[in-house]
Amino acid sequence: MALRQLNALGRHLALAGFMGSGKTTAGEAVAARLGRRFVDLDREVEARAGAAIAELFSTRGEAAFRQVEEAVALDVLSGGEPVVVALGGGAVLSEQTRQHLASRAFTVLLDVEPEVAWQRVGGTERPLAQAEDAFHALHRDRQPLYEAVADAHAPDVDGIVLASAGVHVEVGAIDELGELVPGDGSVALVADRHVSGIHGIRAQVALGARDVEQHEVPTGEAAKTPAVLERLWTALRIGRDGTLVALGGGSTTDVVGFAAATHMRGVPWTAVPTSLVGQVDAGIGGKTAIDLPGAKNAVGAFHWPVRVVCDPSLLTTLPEEERLNGLAEVVKTGLLAGRPLWELPEPEQVRACATFKAGVCLQDPRDRGPRNQLNLGHTFAHALEAAAGYALPHGRAVALGLLAALRLSGLPDETRAVEEVLSPERVRVDRDAAWAAVARDKKAERGAPRLVLLDRPGRPRWGVELPEADVRRALEELIA
Amino acid sequence: MALRQLNALGRHLALAGFMGSGKTTAGEAVAARLGRRFVDLDREVEARAGAAIAELFSTRGEAAFRQVEEAVALDVLSGGEPVVVALGGGAVLSEQTRQHLASRAFTVLLDVEPEVAWQRVGGTERPLAQAEDAFHALHRDRQPLYEAVADAHAPDVDGIVLASAGVHVEVGAIDELGELVPGDGSVALVADRHVSGIHGIRAQVALGARDVEQHEVPTGEAAKTPAVLERLWTALRIGRDGTLVALGGGSTTDVVGFAAATHMRGVPWTAVPTSLVGQVDAGIGGKTAIDLPGAKNAVGAFHWPVRVVCDPSLLTTLPEEERLNGLAEVVKTGLLAGRPLWELPEPEQVRACATFKAGVCLQDPRDRGPRNQLNLGHTFAHALEAAAGYALPHGRAVALGLLAALRLSGLPDETRAVEEVLSPERVRVDRDAAWAAVARDKKAERGAPRLVLLDRPGRPRWGVELPEADVRRALEELIA
Repeated sequence: MALRQLNALGRHLALAGFMGSGKTTAGEAVAARLGRRFVDLDREVEARAGAAIAELFSTRGEAAFRQVEEAVALDVLSGGEPVVVALGGGAVLSEQTRQHLASRAFTVLLDVEPEVAWQRVGGTERPLAQAEDAFHALHRDRQPLYEAVADAHAPDVDGIVLASAGVHVEVGAIDELGELVPGDGSVALVADRHVSGIHGIRAQVALGARDVEQHEVPTGEAAKTPAVLERLWTALRIGRDGTLVALGGGSTTDVVGFAAATHMRGVPWTAVPTSLVGQVDAGIGGKTAIDLPGAKNAVGAFHWPVRVVCDPSLLTTLPEEERLNGLAEVVKTGLLAGRPLWELPEPEQVRACATFKAGVCLQDPRDRGPRNQLNLGHTFAHALEAAAGYALPHGRAVALGLLAALRLSGLPDETRAVEEVLSPERVRVDRDAAWAAVARDKKAERGAPRLVLLDRPGRPRWGVELPEADVRRALEELIA
Repeated sequence: MALRQLNALGRHLALAGFMGSGKTTAGEAVAARLGRRFVDLDREVEARAGAAIAELFSTRGEAAFRQVEEAVALDVLSGGEPVVVALGGGAVLSEQTRQHLASRAFTVLLDVEPEVAWQRVGGTERPLAQAEDAFHALHRDRQPLYEAVADAHAPDVDGIVLASAGVHVEVGAIDELGELVPGDGSVALVADRHVSGIHGIRAQVALGARDVEQHEVPTGEAAKTPAVLERLWTALRIGRDGTLVALGGGSTTDVVGFAAATHMRGVPWTAVPTSLVGQVDAGIGGKTAIDLPGAKNAVGAFHWPVRVVCDPSLLTTLPEEERLNGLAEVVKTGLLAGRPLWELPEPEQVRACATFKAGVCLQDPRDRGPRNQLNLGHTFAHALEAAAGYALPHGRAVALGLLAALRLSGLPDETRAVEEVLSPERVRVDRDAAWAAVARDKKAERGAPRLVLLDRPGRPRWGVELPEADVRRALEELIA
């Protein structure tokens, strides 16, 4: 069997599944999230044949239909621009199509119970959904073919997006690391020193069947230094067929991901974020980095993790301040997505935020456009943090930054909502220092800060240039 | 106008040019070098239309031909597998084709004098090569369209391969760095301390019109340390729209390329190798790295330079030992290419070796297969260097390694040739230490060294496993 694809990065995303599994509806929604063209294979076949599928079946027979279907599928899968394609239920009957799927697409199987599928499409114009017994028999016959092409299974649109990014969200997932970390080579497990004491043994036990070496890095931002990176580089023993596993918060995944990007010119890695920030934001999307004095994330690489394992049950041991850091990112994500995600129970918060971030990052893995929206509020947050000598909790900085962005967006209701949910206190920092940091921000071009604003919740606009006086006033409102 | 593409890495390579410029012949040769499928657009059009071009013109007219030609060109350029495509002389008349070329291909214009072209194709069956006056007029009319689509110009097969890799070989090229370094943002010029004293001013003057910051790194392998890298990271002031220029030998381009791969998660860079090793080998192909104690190139990245500028006139100041280091790589390349490249004058040596290396690396940028051949002799060379505590000149180590590889390949004539050209003395090192280093070599899999051998010159085979006793005997023959 061909090697499984690990994600849809830079390749086609194909949706497979039986009649009535909802491939077309889901495919359209997923394509919108990923900013890709959507191709419905059945519609393409009809366009090429110049006839409706029911008509093709009745006048020319199933074999003739399958021939056209295969030709169209191969054309679509040979294209260089990655699309989202909903396969016809029987497209996987063609071996050539299956081979193209294996080499050129990430294929997600949309699971459906045959009873549910029959309720949806039985007795409609679909030629193969006329008799219930035959329908069930067909489902049984085809299931092995679906399994053979599937790189992943998913129940819904969010599940497809998560699978396409290699993200796995599940309570208790840490105990399944042995299966979730791809490959069978040796593993270097690198954990935040503090987290190692809490979850390290569980992770080790889960990886138990594999050859595992263990390393620790300092807790929090202190891990993101050239010295820690160099120690890690020197300590790593895994070869090119090995893989890294990062267990910890956003700082841990940042430095370990960067080590993975550069150890022997790059090995695969799995992120196991243990903080709310990590699970809803930092662990997803392939940005890795360390800091230099006075310059956060100054050095790094884009190196997509082959898997991100988010286990919301790990969050129960989180200190309150850490939880607030994460909640600020949840609120940011909710504002960008246009849904009050912060009102969901925590495991659902994680799934929804991880899905949103995964979709945006798949759309723009190298941060050249849409991904800018994720900086909502962050220009102000970074400036306050810099002016405070990084002695300010990130969550409070982001909460304040969101307030500034919402005020500049002219959205008083949302401003109030953020105040209620996050109630961030204004900070005591030097006003001029904070303003200088805004101008230095990486998103500034030739000195003029570029902001992310919201036309309304769910409608971000990035690269916005505003009069300096307005930006400065918004900044100063955050300072006590 | 669309932004120029900088190389053919991961995208189609299109050859444009007038009738008789030799696109088909050159295209076939280039496709073989790059390990890609070759598409001759005229032949594809004939296949689709089911008629020869002359017949198409006479029975259906030029307009009908152009329609088919455009449809086929768009199909080819939409494909996901990068190919080499020879465009028909008039394919650039279509605006849609020109747009596809701009966004999806690296287009090289094969220059030809119209008189030469007429001698080649005048009066043949080609419908537009019947009258010499009309032929010249057509050439004049089309030239602006060729210029509009061309990302680069080239005179021959080697020139096409070099351009496709972004490599520019020219005596005196250092004085044209201002034009050769792509973009118009600020530049960080990083030079080997020693080279900076010799060529630094020329490079600065050439870059004079741009905003240039300057940095130095230690000479030779001493530059490839985490400490030097960290100093460079900290010193760099260029932003995301900036670019690095590395001026020095292979060690300089290795560390500066790695800094470019990681500064702000990656900025473009230009390599200006000033040593023979750098110009024929190390500066080309996008492998960047630093060393860790006891592990050469242990950390790095694949980061293709947007331009490699090889100025053979810089080699006149090279110390003799440095020249010998380079000559060993020239001999290696000649053995792989099946031509005694070491007999050429130096500028031609550089061009031929750079072309060979560029072709292999374009074929396998991530070092997953064909690029292995470049390790001919290097398993032994690395082992001798390690056993000698890296106190052995690289050229002597490679020369000895080539002897071992040729003896194991059963090629006595080539073995003698290497002895004559490079006359490497055997080294005094500990035999067991050298053997242990062979086993540790990165190319070893589960302890058994994988070698590159030659079936004959020009016919390398890699991943060869031989009985340990044979390999050890070949190694010991190199030790005094």
